[in-house]
Amino acid sequence: MALQGKMVIGQSGGPTAVINQSLVGAVLAARKHAEITGILGAKHGIAGIMNEDFIDLTTQSEKELEILAATPAAGLGSVRLKPGKAECERVFEVFKKNDVRYFFYVGGNDSAETAHIIAEMAREADYDFCTIHIPKTIDNDLKVTDHCPGYASAARFVALAFMGDDRDNSALAGIKINIVMGRDAGFLTAASALARQGEGDGPHLIYVPERTFDVAQFQADVKATVAKYGRCLVAVSEGITNADGEPVMTTGERDSHGNLQLSGSGALGDFLSGKVKEAYAGESVRVRADTFGYLQRSFPTIISSVDAQEARMVGDYGVNHAVANGEPGSVAIRRLSSQPYASECFITPLSTVAREATALKDEYINEAGNDVTQAWIDYVSPLVGELPKMGKLF
Amino acid sequence: MALQGKMVIGQSGGPTAVINQSLVGAVLAARKHAEITGILGAKHGIAGIMNEDFIDLTTQSEKELEILAATPAAGLGSVRLKPGKAECERVFEVFKKNDVRYFFYVGGNDSAETAHIIAEMAREADYDFCTIHIPKTIDNDLKVTDHCPGYASAARFVALAFMGDDRDNSALAGIKINIVMGRDAGFLTAASALARQGEGDGPHLIYVPERTFDVAQFQADVKATVAKYGRCLVAVSEGITNADGEPVMTTGERDSHGNLQLSGSGALGDFLSGKVKEAYAGESVRVRADTFGYLQRSFPTIISSVDAQEARMVGDYGVNHAVANGEPGSVAIRRLSSQPYASECFITPLSTVAREATALKDEYINEAGNDVTQAWIDYVSPLVGELPKMGKLF
Repeated sequence: MALQGKMVIGQSGGPTAVINQSLVGAVLAARKHAEITGILGAKHGIAGIMNEDFIDLTTQSEKELEILAATPAAGLGSVRLKPGKAECERVFEVFKKNDVRYFFYVGGNDSAETAHIIAEMAREADYDFCTIHIPKTIDNDLKVTDHCPGYASAARFVALAFMGDDRDNSALAGIKINIVMGRDAGFLTAASALARQGEGDGPHLIYVPERTFDVAQFQADVKATVAKYGRCLVAVSEGITNADGEPVMTTGERDSHGNLQLSGSGALGDFLSGKVKEAYAGESVRVRADTFGYLQRSFPTIISSVDAQEARMVGDYGVNHAVANGEPGSVAIRRLSSQPYASECFITPLSTVAREATALKDEYINEAGNDVTQAWIDYVSPLVGELPKMGKLF
Repeated sequence: MALQGKMVIGQSGGPTAVINQSLVGAVLAARKHAEITGILGAKHGIAGIMNEDFIDLTTQSEKELEILAATPAAGLGSVRLKPGKAECERVFEVFKKNDVRYFFYVGGNDSAETAHIIAEMAREADYDFCTIHIPKTIDNDLKVTDHCPGYASAARFVALAFMGDDRDNSALAGIKINIVMGRDAGFLTAASALARQGEGDGPHLIYVPERTFDVAQFQADVKATVAKYGRCLVAVSEGITNADGEPVMTTGERDSHGNLQLSGSGALGDFLSGKVKEAYAGESVRVRADTFGYLQRSFPTIISSVDAQEARMVGDYGVNHAVANGEPGSVAIRRLSSQPYASECFITPLSTVAREATALKDEYINEAGNDVTQAWIDYVSPLVGELPKMGKLF
């Protein structure tokens, strides 16, 4: 028999364009189950649970929820908090006090770990309880799943940005460097390749964190591209590291996880611009760098329809699985076909998703380490969806 | 009787999302006039004319042209070149040699000046010739016209970016500074105010180049906002200057016009982030800065429908006027009504648009110099068009 009690749902980590689809998918599914006696939204994830700061999610109209679903970021508020044992105990105490029997946590691998710890505590305490991790990350770096909700919309932003910027760079020739999000994985940076529609289109060079970044090689690559096309558009992941494994350039600041700050600064772009100018010592050369920053994860209306639909699906699936089955787990996506694109959900144990992350497969990166392969395009295209055709006169 | 001969059309200055609409509007209009015996597109504006580097624009299908019209940047290629007397003489020589009787130049006030000089030379030489300037600039800083094609789409990008980023900042609270294009005029930065849909929504502070930027006041404004809302989203124009009229922060590099480089670098954002951190000396505070950069002028699909339609209209109107009237001039837009929005074209003398630019009217900036007024919102809203509603739970 299904567990009877309230559910708590929270959102964690970096916002995405479709994380609220997962929230709404879960809420609408929960409203159909009599076993779920209350739907509590935790404000700012684990932090809200510890403070019993909940939003009642039983009263909003479907129309309101649909507007929320199409809104980027995280409607419940998010948090960057990897709770320790004491915090998890407090969470568990709140759950017991409020007769919470279901916990859905929408987030990345850190959130999966939180869900895993709480699930373990419930088991040890013999408390009938089901924890489900609902995947979300623009980084696309979760294990097991074919891809992560949130990724494809950010990838669509990156692809469109490069399409427009390539036309811009073609109109006013020069060297343009665009810094794309991705600390340890180059999935988002690699999506820039979708901007290419013909010979000579940029990005002409793509650098991802999966390969060591060598400044001298970068300078040589840029000069070779300019010699060939008279211009050069470059995609660089914010997380590129040198041969010692150190970030190529950061502001030096660390976040609450102890990670060096990469986003929200133009430091890497400006550093690489300087290196290009150095390579052209004496020659007049137009070099510009843009850092896409937070726009790429929260831009309204730039949403992949596959992504929106799958983000809804993982929320819905997680709740239905919890009520029907009761086993904790993480919702994952299995790709059934690329052409035409089709996918389905399944449940994978929390331990298989928690903590560790994945990166781009070797087969997706070219030998020189400055571009992607056709296998990558085949993987990512159906997720991002059809892109507009760029008109050209030459 | 109308002039009979070929026409040349060129694009100049910074790309926009709809400059190709003007090109296509002019080309399609020209194809209807038997007086226009050939349509030559100049590659990279004046530079292409001097080199007789033309693209025949009589052969493309309407379908191809419509794809081009929806493509950002500048399909003919652009140029940043303010020609001197010698260059203008060369242009005029090429025109005479090729029996060019019409010249349409799509650009900002520098392009209007180029058109003006060429028109004057034709008059002095008694060469029957008509030069029309077709307005284009994301900066919206042309005189006479109510607004400039290209502006509203960039403004729409800025408004959407702030809407999403405000949700992002609400989900993970902190201080976020976004640097928006605009060297001497704050039109684009001011458009960020359209992101607000309710009390407490950002941007909470807006700084434009029309007011002196005082770092200490900025620091105090940010702290007051954080005290009130627990977070702060700031829009800053790249062109802000200090009390001495000097840019607050640049890379120090100058472009071919002798202007200090402002775009294509994160320098100002990083500088202001540092100033905010200084203001919170000792306290832990999350500060991030993004520089929107080139994305805001060339992003495919983020296009205001009023802008697209008007950009088409000014191209069409310019050609029809030239054939019917023959007098040189600049196409301008007159607003007939804001609700419902309606506009029409008219011709203003080239001398009224050339060289000088405008900036935000005083009535559009609040007294404290850190926000816009309702009069500004009334002006800009109909141009940008309807924006999606952001869903909120708190």
